[in-house]
Parts: sequence; structure tokens; C-alpha cells
Amino acid sequence: MSAILELAKKLIACASITPQDAGCQPLLAERLEALGFRGERLPFGEVDNIWLRRGQKSPVFVFAGHTDVVPPGPAEQWLIDPFKPEIRDEMLYGRGAADMKGSLAAMVTASERFITVHPDHLGSIAFLLTSDEEGQAVNGTVKVVETLEARGEKIDYCLVGEPTSRERVGDMVKNGRRGSLSGRLLVHGTQGHVAYPHLADNPIHGLTPVLVTLCAREWDRGNEDFPPTTFQVSNIHGGTGATNVIPGEVEILFNFRYSTEVTHQQLQQQVEAILSQHNLNYELEWTLSGKPFRTAPGNLMRAVSQAIGDITGLETEFSTTGGTSDGRFIAPTGAQVVELGPVNATIHKVNECVAVADLERLSQIYSRLLEILLTD
Amino acid sequence: MSAILELAKKLIACASITPQDAGCQPLLAERLEALGFRGERLPFGEVDNIWLRRGQKSPVFVFAGHTDVVPPGPAEQWLIDPFKPEIRDEMLYGRGAADMKGSLAAMVTASERFITVHPDHLGSIAFLLTSDEEGQAVNGTVKVVETLEARGEKIDYCLVGEPTSRERVGDMVKNGRRGSLSGRLLVHGTQGHVAYPHLADNPIHGLTPVLVTLCAREWDRGNEDFPPTTFQVSNIHGGTGATNVIPGEVEILFNFRYSTEVTHQQLQQQVEAILSQHNLNYELEWTLSGKPFRTAPGNLMRAVSQAIGDITGLETEFSTTGGTSDGRFIAPTGAQVVELGPVNATIHKVNECVAVADLERLSQIYSRLLEILLTD
Repeated sequence: MSAILELAKKLIACASITPQDAGCQPLLAERLEALGFRGERLPFGEVDNIWLRRGQKSPVFVFAGHTDVVPPGPAEQWLIDPFKPEIRDEMLYGRGAADMKGSLAAMVTASERFITVHPDHLGSIAFLLTSDEEGQAVNGTVKVVETLEARGEKIDYCLVGEPTSRERVGDMVKNGRRGSLSGRLLVHGTQGHVAYPHLADNPIHGLTPVLVTLCAREWDRGNEDFPPTTFQVSNIHGGTGATNVIPGEVEILFNFRYSTEVTHQQLQQQVEAILSQHNLNYELEWTLSGKPFRTAPGNLMRAVSQAIGDITGLETEFSTTGGTSDGRFIAPTGAQVVELGPVNATIHKVNECVAVADLERLSQIYSRLLEILLTD
Repeated sequence: MSAILELAKKLIACASITPQDAGCQPLLAERLEALGFRGERLPFGEVDNIWLRRGQKSPVFVFAGHTDVVPPGPAEQWLIDPFKPEIRDEMLYGRGAADMKGSLAAMVTASERFITVHPDHLGSIAFLLTSDEEGQAVNGTVKVVETLEARGEKIDYCLVGEPTSRERVGDMVKNGRRGSLSGRLLVHGTQGHVAYPHLADNPIHGLTPVLVTLCAREWDRGNEDFPPTTFQVSNIHGGTGATNVIPGEVEILFNFRYSTEVTHQQLQQQVEAILSQHNLNYELEWTLSGKPFRTAPGNLMRAVSQAIGDITGLETEFSTTGGTSDGRFIAPTGAQVVELGPVNATIHKVNECVAVADLERLSQIYSRLLEILLTD
């Protein structure tokens, strides 16, 4: 069995349901410390984090990733025990195989190969590992980054191992992510009997014109790097179940995925301006999950394109679509950040899997990237 | 203690939560049979009904009512045990005091007084009693009316004892009711991640323009007898609770209270026409709870006005507002139907009560009505 497959299977066998690390970080640290990395545990709350660095010089290249996984879901729908990895038809099955224990194994094996050949590489290589990416994401990467910034420790290049590929490993790389802004809108009316609507005030009737405006609005047209900002209602609930009662309130939860053409403050102001045009009694709470970020073309994107081309022959595509990632916490430091990992077709689903050959290729891409950036 | 108060308290002490009769009908039958009424039990399913008639001639005057009550609700919020009636500050408290055991006691005592003085009254007096008005209303009045119609037994005048008064007993009489048409609309979309809205189809977004149209529409302008038709959404539910998932479907429950200016078929057609203008994948189920009915000015309305005026000095107001009642099952036979009962401020609430003096007045109004209609 290849080194990467062996390590990926060991990691999957740790049932590290978020925010548990379940022994993954010690396993990875042991391998990296053997290569000359200096490990520093940075636990916050119940979350395990570790920062491992080899070298003191610039540029600092960081592999960032998470050891936690989402819950496996219905066990009876899995072909295998999700925490007992198995290979079937050249695919490695198990929870976390693609998101992102395969990537972690690729990062470590790539570092091992690279350092063996280039023990005196330029700059530094570091690993930023957390067990809090799939959960709250409050005691993980964001706290480690704060710690590094507080002591002036700078990241130049960062590769996040999120599964970004669509059909073939390396066909898509993220060089940024949209922002995510969520809102909870509670509209108050006056409860009453449906037979006496003049004595009541139906908050559903009050809300709907607002919703139509919000759904139809063009928030921006996006730009070269970002698709247009989108507004989606995820939940709407009003009414007690009784069919003869006008409800006293209705609640919606909504989310913006937004480009760099607007700020979260502008979106909030626009929503509040629309609400103020309607005579509603409402409460509105905002949650900013992440501001948009984008890495401009430069050394890192060039090197990633080249490494993917050298190993796979593919011309990769850079994109800022998709969900949020821990990249949002690292980019504001000024680091160049890209995300590159395996095919994401099965992530967060039952029977999560990754092609064994893709893991090998991913490790090759990662080590080629180190060569391009950290050797003369 | 007066006769009416004694009877009302005995009825309240029967815990006849719908569809239970809990001994009310035997109690009433015993009193009426002593006056020469001939009783006929007409049970359907688990529902007790009884038809009691005195006389064979026309016109047939019917007191219609129900012995069942709505559940008492939170016991700790009641001043008293809801099934142990008590008088406090000249008010009779207990579940059913106003809706409508007080009316039943008034009907019986009115008949007793009237028949004692006019044993050879014109026409016939009858009682149509059910224990299924507050519940499903499928095995109650509607079935008794079917039985009467099947054998050609005709009702000329019907007084339903529903609590119609607003502030003083007799200040409002219902001479009809709006229709009630309910719908359940389920809109199907395509579930997906909020970060990839182009791969999903948000049914909430699809529904809202339809809702705006339905809420804003003028269905009719009502007429002399009916207020305009109203549309109300009682419930709306979509979303699983997860804030990053575009839901696969959204459901609304809605209700029309409609006038005689439209039919339920027309309302259904109009809603379906509006839906067809939007590209929605939906299911729609209709439930017709009752068609609108109206008693035109005639002998019964004149007599009711006069009786109320004679006893209370009030000039009563006829109205078709409010919820549905069993009058909807009787009016289609061609009977003149009015509803007249106590003040409805506390019905279906905790601490339901009725003024003791109002019970006496109501009994007087009822017996005066019998005099006007059934004596020379």
C-alpha cells in the first residue's frame, strides 16, 4: 500500500466528528516532526489546533486544513462502516476521504518527498491544522491566525486542502470565496380569527411584498472574479397549525452570498431600507459568517497553475464559487490563499469517497508546488 | 335560584367536551317531554342528536343548538373548575355558559312559560340538538336535517342559539353567514445548497409573487348583506431549520370567508388561474366548510326584531359576519334561519361567562318570539 493511502486510512479511522480531532493531529505531528517541523499545540475551548513550522525564513508556505469531519448520517445507507476505510473499485471510501483527510495525507507525503530531496529549501513550510472547520469555526483557524498575527508571524502563501475539483483532480482551484451574510427576520402582526381579519394584522400578508422585492432585486452584477450576489430564503415559518387563526408572527431565515462589489454593511442597509418602505413591526438579526476574499493573480496562482499542468496536463480554472472555507480567516492577513483538493462530488454525503489515483496525483501536485515556490 | 339558572348550571356540570353529550340531551328531553314534546334520538357515529317536536301543524318553529363545548384549555388560568359552574359578581362562570348551554336553558324555560300559557299554540315547536357542532360537524345537524328532509318534515322558522350579541343581549342577530373555503397549497422546488442557487429552485421565491397577488386582490365588494370576501393565510412553512439549505417545498394553508357575490367554484377558478400564470410545480387541495347563506327579511326577522325591542328596548342589528354555524345546514332547506344568543366576548376562552340577567332576558326574548309567531 502506498504511503499516502496508508496515512489517509489511518486518519479516516479516527472518528473525528466535528469538533473532535480524535488523534489525527498527533498522528500528523509525529510524521512532520520527524521531518524537522516544530509543533505548537494551540487548543481553544474544546477545539484542538496545531501549528507546525519548518524553517525560520520567508517566504512562509502554509498547508491549511481540518481534521474534523461532518457526521456520517444514516449508517444503513453506507456501503461500509464510515470510520473503517475500504478500497472498492479503485476508490477509497470513508467519512472524510475527500473532505479532507485525503488532502492532509497528500500534504504530509508531499512534504516528505520534497524535504527528502530539498532539505535546505527556501523559506519555510508550515501546517495550520484545526478540528473546528465543519462546526462553529470560532475556536479554530480564526484563533490560530490571531495568535500568529499577535506575534508578527506572517504567512506568504497558503494552500487550503478543501475539495475543489469537479471531475478531475486539479480542474478547479478556488482563489477566493464569496462573503456569507445571514439574517433572521421576525415580523410581528396581531393574532386573530380568520373570520374577523379586520381585528387582526396578518404578518404573512405584510411580509410577502417585502420578500418579492428582496427576491427580485439585482444586488450587483458580480465582477471578473465573482458571480453576482445572491439572496436566498432558507426557512419561513408562521402559523400554529390551526386553520382558523391568523398568526401573530412569521419568521424567515435568509442568506446572502455576496461578491466584492458590495459590502455586508451595504447589503444590510439596503434590506433595512426596503423594510422601512413597508409598514412592518419587525426584528432583524444579522450574522456575518465571512467577508468575501480574493487572491489576485501572482506567484501562488501562477505556481499552482504550473504544478497542476505539469502533473495532470490540465489547464486549471480559478473560481470564487461555492461555500465558505477557513481561507476567509487567512486571506485578511495579506497572505495569498488558494484552495485545491480532490473531487467534491461525494462530500457531506453517504459513501464519501476519493479515487486512489487522485490522492497520488494530489500529493504530486502539492510537492511540485513546493518545488516551484521554495527552490531556486 | 331561578329555573333558567338552575338548568344552565346542570348543563354546564355535564363535561360535554365535543363530541360528547355527557347527559345534556336526556336532561333537556326529560323537561321537554313533560311539556308534550315527542323526542326522537338520532345518533350518528359517536355523536348524540335528538329531535323533539310538539304539534303536527305548520308553521314549524325550531330551536337549534349544540350541547358540546370546546375544551376548557389551561385549568390553572380558570377562576373556577370549568365544569363546576359558579356565580361571581352576577356572572355565571363555566365552560359553555355562553356557547351555548345558557341559550339551551333559555330555550327550554321559554318553551315552558309559553306552553303553560298557550297550550294550544299555533303550528309546532321543535328542538334540534346535536353534540357535534364544535368538532367535525359531520354527524350532527347536517345528518338530522338530511333525515328530516328525507321524510318531508319541513322547518319554517329556525332560531340557532349561538352567542351573537356583542355588548348587550339582543344587540346583534345573525341572519346569515359567509361561506368558508379553505385551501392547502404545496409548492415543490428543488432542494440545494444556498451557495449554489443556480442548481436549486427555491419554492419560497416562487410562491411569494403568487401570495402578493392573492393578498392584494379584491375578490368582490360584498353586498347589502355581506362584507367583502376576504383571503387569509393561516400557516406558511418551508425549510428544515438548516440555514444553508434551499428548501425543497413550501406549504401554505389559507381560507376564504366569502359573500354571496361569488361561489366557491369561482374562487377556486380564480386562484388556479393566478397560479397558472406563474411557472410553479404545485399541489392544491380544497375544503369547502360551508356555503354562504342568508335569510331574507320576512316573518322571522320581523318577529325577532320586535321580540328584542319589546323585552330590551334595543333596536337589533342583523349581520352576516363571524364564523360558521350549524345554520349553514338548515338554511338550504328553505327555512328562515336566524341566530340569537348571549354576549360572545368570552366564548372559547378561559373563564367563559354570561351575565345572569342576560340569561333571564334571553329566555324572555325567546318566549316573546314564540308568542309573536305562534299565537293569533
